Amino acid sequence: MESNQKHNWKTILHEVIYEADTPSGKLFDILLLVFIILSIVLVMLESVVSIDREYHELLYIGEWVVTILFSIEYILRIISVKKPFKYIFSPFGIIDFLSTIPMYLSFFIVGSQALVTLRALRLLRVFRILKLARYLGASNQLKDSIIASRVKIMVFLFAVMISSVIFGTIMYLVEGEANGFDNIPKSVYWCVVTLTTVGFGDIAPQTALGQLITTFIMILGYGIIAVPTGIVSAEYVRTSQKADKENEALAQNNDNKMVEHQNDNITIHLNSQHCANCNVSNHRDNSDFCYNCGHPLHH
Amino acid sequence: MESNQKHNWKTILHEVIYEADTPSGKLFDILLLVFIILSIVLVMLESVVSIDREYHELLYIGEWVVTILFSIEYILRIISVKKPFKYIFSPFGIIDFLSTIPMYLSFFIVGSQALVTLRALRLLRVFRILKLARYLGASNQLKDSIIASRVKIMVFLFAVMISSVIFGTIMYLVEGEANGFDNIPKSVYWCVVTLTTVGFGDIAPQTALGQLITTFIMILGYGIIAVPTGIVSAEYVRTSQKADKENEALAQNNDNKMVEHQNDNITIHLNSQHCANCNVSNHRDNSDFCYNCGHPLHH
Amino acid sequence: MESNQKHNWKTILHEVIYEADTPSGKLFDILLLVFIILSIVLVMLESVVSIDREYHELLYIGEWVVTILFSIEYILRIISVKKPFKYIFSPFGIIDFLSTIPMYLSFFIVGSQALVTLRALRLLRVFRILKLARYLGASNQLKDSIIASRVKIMVFLFAVMISSVIFGTIMYLVEGEANGFDNIPKSVYWCVVTLTTVGFGDIAPQTALGQLITTFIMILGYGIIAVPTGIVSAEYVRTSQKADKENEALAQNNDNKMVEHQNDNITIHLNSQHCANCNVSNHRDNSDFCYNCGHPLHH
Amino acid sequence: MESNQKHNWKTILHEVIYEADTPSGKLFDILLLVFIILSIVLVMLESVVSIDREYHELLYIGEWVVTILFSIEYILRIISVKKPFKYIFSPFGIIDFLSTIPMYLSFFIVGSQALVTLRALRLLRVFRILKLARYLGASNQLKDSIIASRVKIMVFLFAVMISSVIFGTIMYLVEGEANGFDNIPKSVYWCVVTLTTVGFGDIAPQTALGQLITTFIMILGYGIIAVPTGIVSAEYVRTSQKADKENEALAQNNDNKMVEHQNDNITIHLNSQHCANCNVSNHRDNSDFCYNCGHPLHH
Repeated sequence: MESNQKHNWKTILHEVIYEADTPSGKLFDILLLVFIILSIVLVMLESVVSIDREYHELLYIGEWVVTILFSIEYILRIISVKKPFKYIFSPFGIIDFLSTIPMYLSFFIVGSQALVTLRALRLLRVFRILKLARYLGASNQLKDSIIASRVKIMVFLFAVMISSVIFGTIMYLVEGEANGFDNIPKSVYWCVVTLTTVGFGDIAPQTALGQLITTFIMILGYGIIAVPTGIVSAEYVRTSQKADKENEALAQNNDNKMVEHQNDNITIHLNSQHCANCNVSNHRDNSDFCYNCGHPLHH
Repeated sequence: MESNQKHNWKTILHEVIYEADTPSGKLFDILLLVFIILSIVLVMLESVVSIDREYHELLYIGEWVVTILFSIEYILRIISVKKPFKYIFSPFGIIDFLSTIPMYLSFFIVGSQALVTLRALRLLRVFRILKLARYLGASNQLKDSIIASRVKIMVFLFAVMISSVIFGTIMYLVEGEANGFDNIPKSVYWCVVTLTTVGFGDIAPQTALGQLITTFIMILGYGIIAVPTGIVSAEYVRTSQKADKENEALAQNNDNKMVEHQNDNITIHLNSQHCANCNVSNHRDNSDFCYNCGHPLHH
Repeated sequence: MESNQKHNWKTILHEVIYEADTPSGKLFDILLLVFIILSIVLVMLESVVSIDREYHELLYIGEWVVTILFSIEYILRIISVKKPFKYIFSPFGIIDFLSTIPMYLSFFIVGSQALVTLRALRLLRVFRILKLARYLGASNQLKDSIIASRVKIMVFLFAVMISSVIFGTIMYLVEGEANGFDNIPKSVYWCVVTLTTVGFGDIAPQTALGQLITTFIMILGYGIIAVPTGIVSAEYVRTSQKADKENEALAQNNDNKMVEHQNDNITIHLNSQHCANCNVSNHRDNSDFCYNCGHPLHH
Repeated sequence: MESNQKHNWKTILHEVIYEADTPSGKLFDILLLVFIILSIVLVMLESVVSIDREYHELLYIGEWVVTILFSIEYILRIISVKKPFKYIFSPFGIIDFLSTIPMYLSFFIVGSQALVTLRALRLLRVFRILKLARYLGASNQLKDSIIASRVKIMVFLFAVMISSVIFGTIMYLVEGEANGFDNIPKSVYWCVVTLTTVGFGDIAPQTALGQLITTFIMILGYGIIAVPTGIVSAEYVRTSQKADKENEALAQNNDNKMVEHQNDNITIHLNSQHCANCNVSNHRDNSDFCYNCGHPLHH
């Protein structure tokens, strides 16, 4: 009986923490979002010397408040899942751990010299921003486009790499150390800066021949920029046409109202629910059982 | 009788000011356009020290001429609409007010110190440029494309934001204050500069590791730039194909000449007329009544 | 009899100069291309102080050789056309004149002070490059795409203009003269530099607020860059799909070999022949008469 | 008998070196890839003064190890092909030779002065990176897209060239040597830097008129960037739609499983096998004879 009650308590907790379909679950997610952004702003402000000098106390307290809240969240997450190790070693589990631990470490690793390194560890908490990725469910189409054009993107990156190494070496020979092209790796770096049309200008060709080659590199870069854009565009056009066709096909069997509804289902047919047993998410909206382990889902 | 005459006078005024279909309405619009551009040029020239020193008197008179004309226009707009408060608190109403008021304020807020702040207030008149947006009726397709890809654009902005914060923090740790990466917010700013391929070069990585990470950021930025372009391209392709299909469908029922005519109707089927009652615009070309309030429209 | 002979002589001359279909016409065009490029290279080399000092004599002689050859070409062009004034006041006629005249002017306008202005006049010869546009017959599709998306491009340029003026003014207020934002026009210029992702870096925001606004401008620019690309992409997709469909339609009536031939005709169905009477070009390959004036065409 | 054995030995060697379908062939390719990358890293590290000073001995030994291995590979490649001269004068043969020879040349060309030039020769080994192009078989679609839009790309490059020369000359006249626009070639270089949105900022307009013209150039460049992207996008959309249609056509005759298999065949229907007789590669997967010379292929 007590075990059952405990189970119920854990089930409710699971729903609040891992799902965004209930009012309390939504509230939890919004609060979490606010605290993540707050904690990132805190880390940023601390790095500004003038602000840190004046409000050091306040920022330090803020840091501890955020750290303690994140620790509680981390523990609750572990408690409410049936298979805690699966969560702990999942990418989100590792991020949650890494964004909480640095403040505690500052107790154990004491010493004036170590403090500098500690700052770096504390900055890891900026990875909290990755927690925001939880809200990126809508990016599935984007991910699909990228996966579909994986090979093409690899070929493109390869082309950029090869061009950069060859032109970087040529520019090193042409311009030399006197004009800022100190060594080949730096020349290759400059070449990527130019090919991607970033053009910092901290290093720039000074000789006539160097400028001629640069002209060629820039026009090449102009052409290369077209490739990833073309790939993604084509992929998007394809995806949206596929969706349009599916809707048209549906439209021939149903009335228009129905189709619009089904269209919504096609594009956003997954919800944010996590299985209480295996913690897998992205279930179809009407599922009664987890598609992964068959455990019943709570609506 | 007099009320009716007054009503007629207001109706004509409304047509001249809010519509661009009658010759006098067109003339009013062109004159307004000329004065808006003139007033912006005046504000710009005033900010150039050497020009302001020489032609201060002339610029000051010009400012007052423009301000008085805009004031008259603002008052006439309020008079000629049936529901003046709807206009006053509409975006265009607020812009019209903000672009007129600063010159008058310079009388009430006097004092040598206040003059500096006043300059800022006066510069608000540059918002007159937003009046030009009135002429942007043709941008509906653009707006539709943007609205249709709203979610994707949000996801994309999110990706840029997260990448910038993470890489900005890493670059702050790697390069440090010695190389211009003074604090994390500045590092994040530099990261956006690099990701968007702007590359000012006021801050640039100096260490080998920093340059390696920058190479990675730039190639990532190169890939990211493909995303909004791909989204908009796909959306445009979709829109234009839809329009083409509609025309094809029409072509099967009518002769070609007719279709071309209807095609024109489909793409530019809205006119610049504003309802005299509720001030709503973008009516279909042949409408006799306002689609919003049912008030009759004057042709 | 003599008049007829003279007419024949002019007809042959017309064919050599204005058409690229006969061997002699092709040779003339290639020679012209070589001399245009040579003359541009001459103007460029003259502007390099070190080269001009050493080879001044040679460059001067080269200039005169090119100028005399272009003069002869100009006179022959006038002689061989039936309606010379139509040629003289056509864009190409004006370009041909402007690229020839500066060297002669250097005789009439003598004087030590005038020499500086003369240099400018002589540099006008760089407009010879526009002669190269003759060879751009293949750019018709490009031109069509641009014309088709005329309105959208205007709207886009408008958006860039308005954004630049507003953000330029804001940045002028935020950064001020101390940080290089001397006046509003310069601020607007900087804003265009940033929005277009060029980013020279000669002016860059120094204050935290300025950098925050810049971040926003850059991401906006990133989005804006998607618009012209999307427009042109959509237009290209549309054009190529139309061409594909036309070929498919043809394929259902003919065998494949035939279709491929007709496909070639569709894409490159115009030749470089100019009418001897009215000087109009871009005739269909098999035309026997000018489509403009009905004058017979020589094959 | 011995000749036959020798023939067999050569056949096996040919298969290992030129093909990636057998396990030993795959291993050879991976080892080659590792050594190519290693050798490029060596050349790069040598160019860094601080690293070269400390590890000169190690880098020198590494260089020789790589050179000897590449020499052996080069000799084996010549031996195992029936027509060695065809390989030697093929692009890959020349690259293989050029990436091996510089180290040997350092013996014959001795002398303190010659050492500087030698360094340049040795750097040619960076061309080893082109060997990586062997692995770019997947880039066929990319190549097809580029070839299909050849004319359009030429027109586009032409437009960039003409614009750069004209605006470069204008900027030279407007800004002059005082503001860094030393001569026309440098001005043209700056113009390409601006048009391609690279914007180094080493040269930047200082006069108001120059900045106005620059604003125009940048917006033009913004428009021009749309052209190559549009071309490639349209070409990609076309290619992917063609592939989709082919699959649909197949799907009507076969079951789905079959189609997916055939789809794979369509996109990657060529293998890495090289003909033992004429060294031609890219054979269809099921070929029994070389499509070029009719020699039997070994599976």
